[in-house]
Amino acid sequence: MPEHMGTHIDAPVHTVQGMWKTDQIPIEKLYGPGVIINVKEKVKSNPDYRVTVEDLMMWEKKFGEMPRHAIAIMNSGWSDKYPNKTQIYGSTQHTNISLFHFPSWHVDAVTWLINKRQINAVGVDTPSTDFGQASSYPCHLTLGKNNVVGIEYVANLDKVPENGSTIYVPVLKLFDGSGGPVRVFATFDDEPNITNAAAILTSLTSYFCFVIFFSMILLREIGL
Amino acid sequence: MPEHMGTHIDAPVHTVQGMWKTDQIPIEKLYGPGVIINVKEKVKSNPDYRVTVEDLMMWEKKFGEMPRHAIAIMNSGWSDKYPNKTQIYGSTQHTNISLFHFPSWHVDAVTWLINKRQINAVGVDTPSTDFGQASSYPCHLTLGKNNVVGIEYVANLDKVPENGSTIYVPVLKLFDGSGGPVRVFATFDDEPNITNAAAILTSLTSYFCFVIFFSMILLREIGL
Repeated sequence: MPEHMGTHIDAPVHTVQGMWKTDQIPIEKLYGPGVIINVKEKVKSNPDYRVTVEDLMMWEKKFGEMPRHAIAIMNSGWSDKYPNKTQIYGSTQHTNISLFHFPSWHVDAVTWLINKRQINAVGVDTPSTDFGQASSYPCHLTLGKNNVVGIEYVANLDKVPENGSTIYVPVLKLFDGSGGPVRVFATFDDEPNITNAAAILTSLTSYFCFVIFFSMILLREIGL
Repeated sequence: MPEHMGTHIDAPVHTVQGMWKTDQIPIEKLYGPGVIINVKEKVKSNPDYRVTVEDLMMWEKKFGEMPRHAIAIMNSGWSDKYPNKTQIYGSTQHTNISLFHFPSWHVDAVTWLINKRQINAVGVDTPSTDFGQASSYPCHLTLGKNNVVGIEYVANLDKVPENGSTIYVPVLKLFDGSGGPVRVFATFDDEPNITNAAAILTSLTSYFCFVIFFSMILLREIGL
């Protein structure tokens, strides 16, 4: 099983030498308040969309200032495309990365999350924390040099409230790893307005929901 | 990476055909109230010790009736032996399983947990849910036929309170899996009497602690 397969993290050392390897990431960086940035509408008309600082401002306008040490994940609706590789990459040519079209973060938004909100990790429901048309990897590099974890191929984000969850990213503690597979999930209290989520939740006080995962089921099919 | 490496689960199908595969285990079976059965003293004089129904009774005498759907894990202190294979297996011959000596569960205790307390999962800090000297695999078989998850090679159990935690077992959702690696962890509220744990905890309301894992760090060394 490769480190960067399925729902997985990029350890900071993946892009910047000397930064944390998978086994070195402090546990307190692997969970935090969930911040879901919903850009599904914007992505519909623009598969090259990148989450902007303005999107983050809009989230704060709705929910208040983001908690420190959050796990922020873009919900672009991209997980609906699995396991169709052509749809995931936005291209019929699956080995020519210059033709890829899928959304992700703008480096300015990532920088803002790091500097202004001390983010713990930044995630996407697409193949990369840099968008498909990226020719360089500014988000990867910014995350790496700031020792911030990236999370790729997250799923089921519609089932998690945009605010108020706790997201866990308990990556396998791979020795010397540059990343690693993980079954990300969220816990949150049941609320009357979260009907979809409620349906799959249990009756404990703190509810537990799968956030992630395409994981291996689909990965075996498409070999990502 | 093999399915049964490092801290990992055995899916019920591992021993009984037709039962849950790794990707089929319902999410609500992969977390629950933590019940830690401390048999460290008993194991010191008997490496072939098996947790008894009486041990479970003693836990209940101390903490009250076990919550339903718990994750019960034996703490035998065995994790201190890593990564020394000879100590782990209690034998210098690492391929002759008939010579193995390490503690685990007695099938009567496992049966009691299933029938009387509707346990979600049963774990050990040793290599197997059946003890080293087992010639058949009664615990594995009992867990399998009751669709109960087994967890092997758990670590850091001294850092988790014997009662009052929530334990999470977010195994990688491997398609058709007979098991899978997992970074098990526990959350619990800080309490004045948990000084060891408090030291490694964070300042959030719900505290988060590594229960498990030797994980790959040691596993790479010893190739378990």
